Amino acid sequence: MKLQVTQENLNKALGTVARVANARGTLPVLANVLIKTVNNRLSIAATNLDIAITHYIGAKVADEGAITAPARLMQDFVSSLPGGVIDLQLDEYKLHIVTDQYQSVINGVSAEEFPVMPAITEGKTWTVPSALLKKALQQVVIAASGDEARPVLTGVYFHTADGVLHVAATDSYRLAEKELLKTDEDINLLVPVTAMQDLLRILGDAEDEVQVTSDDQQVLFRVGDVELVARLIEGKYPDYRKLIPTSFTTSATLLRADLLNAAKISSLFARESAGSITLNIDEETKELSIRSIASQLGENTAKAPAKVEGSGSITINSRYLLDALHVLSGEEVSFAFNGKLEPSLLRDPAASDYSHIIMPLKS
Amino acid sequence: MKLQVTQENLNKALGTVARVANARGTLPVLANVLIKTVNNRLSIAATNLDIAITHYIGAKVADEGAITAPARLMQDFVSSLPGGVIDLQLDEYKLHIVTDQYQSVINGVSAEEFPVMPAITEGKTWTVPSALLKKALQQVVIAASGDEARPVLTGVYFHTADGVLHVAATDSYRLAEKELLKTDEDINLLVPVTAMQDLLRILGDAEDEVQVTSDDQQVLFRVGDVELVARLIEGKYPDYRKLIPTSFTTSATLLRADLLNAAKISSLFARESAGSITLNIDEETKELSIRSIASQLGENTAKAPAKVEGSGSITINSRYLLDALHVLSGEEVSFAFNGKLEPSLLRDPAASDYSHIIMPLKS
Repeated sequence: MKLQVTQENLNKALGTVARVANARGTLPVLANVLIKTVNNRLSIAATNLDIAITHYIGAKVADEGAITAPARLMQDFVSSLPGGVIDLQLDEYKLHIVTDQYQSVINGVSAEEFPVMPAITEGKTWTVPSALLKKALQQVVIAASGDEARPVLTGVYFHTADGVLHVAATDSYRLAEKELLKTDEDINLLVPVTAMQDLLRILGDAEDEVQVTSDDQQVLFRVGDVELVARLIEGKYPDYRKLIPTSFTTSATLLRADLLNAAKISSLFARESAGSITLNIDEETKELSIRSIASQLGENTAKAPAKVEGSGSITINSRYLLDALHVLSGEEVSFAFNGKLEPSLLRDPAASDYSHIIMPLKS
Repeated sequence: MKLQVTQENLNKALGTVARVANARGTLPVLANVLIKTVNNRLSIAATNLDIAITHYIGAKVADEGAITAPARLMQDFVSSLPGGVIDLQLDEYKLHIVTDQYQSVINGVSAEEFPVMPAITEGKTWTVPSALLKKALQQVVIAASGDEARPVLTGVYFHTADGVLHVAATDSYRLAEKELLKTDEDINLLVPVTAMQDLLRILGDAEDEVQVTSDDQQVLFRVGDVELVARLIEGKYPDYRKLIPTSFTTSATLLRADLLNAAKISSLFARESAGSITLNIDEETKELSIRSIASQLGENTAKAPAKVEGSGSITINSRYLLDALHVLSGEEVSFAFNGKLEPSLLRDPAASDYSHIIMPLKS
């Protein structure tokens, strides 16, 4: 292997993939990145066996070849090099990296020890604008579960219903759903939330298209020069849509910034009670108020003016409320529910394509 | 106690002092801040018994009084409140904090349980410009020791020599000294480095004066509306000045950015060898080069053009070199030494008022 790349491109590719490499796994070679010439490009790849990311960059290839090298050292080293041309040359398993001022030899491990990167040869393909997918994932991943005891809830669920592609996640305490786009395809994919968090770091705000290809076992997201492949989660996703209420006895619409600040201050007094705060909507005073009590520290009541329909109160977890308010967009937010024991719904009153459900706490 | 303050002032004062309060100490009241009316001002104070910080703010006082309240909750709470007037009212040990939208009750602890803040009634006083003291402390605190086994080395040493006030610190592996100002006073103060790190957070870049008053046991730094009192360290500081070499057999002067980048990259390959890197100065090639070897990972040589006098090499700890290069100012840096076993000296060639010594590693 003998080639030239720019520091800028190599640094960008290492930044994309190195995060997936894991030095603490059981297979030491997974702490490495795979560096491989592919025609007149260089592919930089890393995998943790569940997720694989490959970034292709332009290269002036004199001799083809492949090697793996420690991901962290490569990333720290290349990001510290000055901009400009870098010479890479492989001598047995020693990777020589040379610039004007720096001469390094990094001890590599044979590319044959690296797991074969999964490939999807046949499958269904659809596309979605990058910025749209990014926003949807940002709004949805927060509701996925981290508890491996129920694997389906650690997934982000892409599925078609009534001719619309939806993306959803729930940990059974809260649920987020976004309508992505109209489609005739019958899509049904349950993707690990960790893969979607990695994809979020790759997605830009530019008007690129993301190409999504899947077979029964895996899904490939292609964004520009980057490919992310993830293993799909097996199992049937819960029929969550019947949980979303369609009518409410009590609702308030107010400035999102007001509710966010009230929730933030209330949460300070809810640390002793596992985040428990009580929201009260009052039709007479036209206010939403939040009350939280810390037996040791003190107590707090925060209130904000609102457009109100129906009075009532409900107790929820302040962290879930804060998470939802951070990913909602729009100047206003509506908060609605049917009594103490039923799910509550948060929405941007100007955009009904995103729904966020929070289940009540027993109070 | 009944008074009004602005959120802006109270937030600033809590930001200054709350860091010193410690929730994990043996005396629970030290996790609190002391809030106390003093004539027509409000004093906010915290202490860990070694260091005490007090910030005075303007207040409209209706009834005098004092209370202590949890520092972290107060800081988180007040920083989240909107700007404007805050009403504080004490009802027994309950502190009521009221704004337009928020009503809180925080359970306080009697001010009588709070340690008496130390006072310096008689002592020597001198002044130093805030920006000058800030720069000097930034350049010196990095060299102080964190090892309580030798208490004097955990101090920052202010002392007069040849009519000049010096400030110095050393952990015996490296030494930093700055000439602060000419003075006729005979100053000799050994102040805990932790107190100087707290002082650094308080010092601004504005052209304020810092007033320093000390007696045999403590020192008071007064900066605007803030007072920091620290207990002095007892013991005799080592006669470090004789360690600073005055002539050299080998020296190189080069761009600080070049040496910084070479040291940074070399340190990546020095992780296995406890930071050990070898600097070589070559009079013929007019280069300074740094070599580091990681038996497992690989090796690296970095070089940079330099103005050179005399050839030679020396092995030092890369972290110490990086620390020194980060606090030196000036475009260029000079690195000089007398053989492998003698201390090396770093300086800005345009400013001889700061000296940084690094002891060699055995190689």
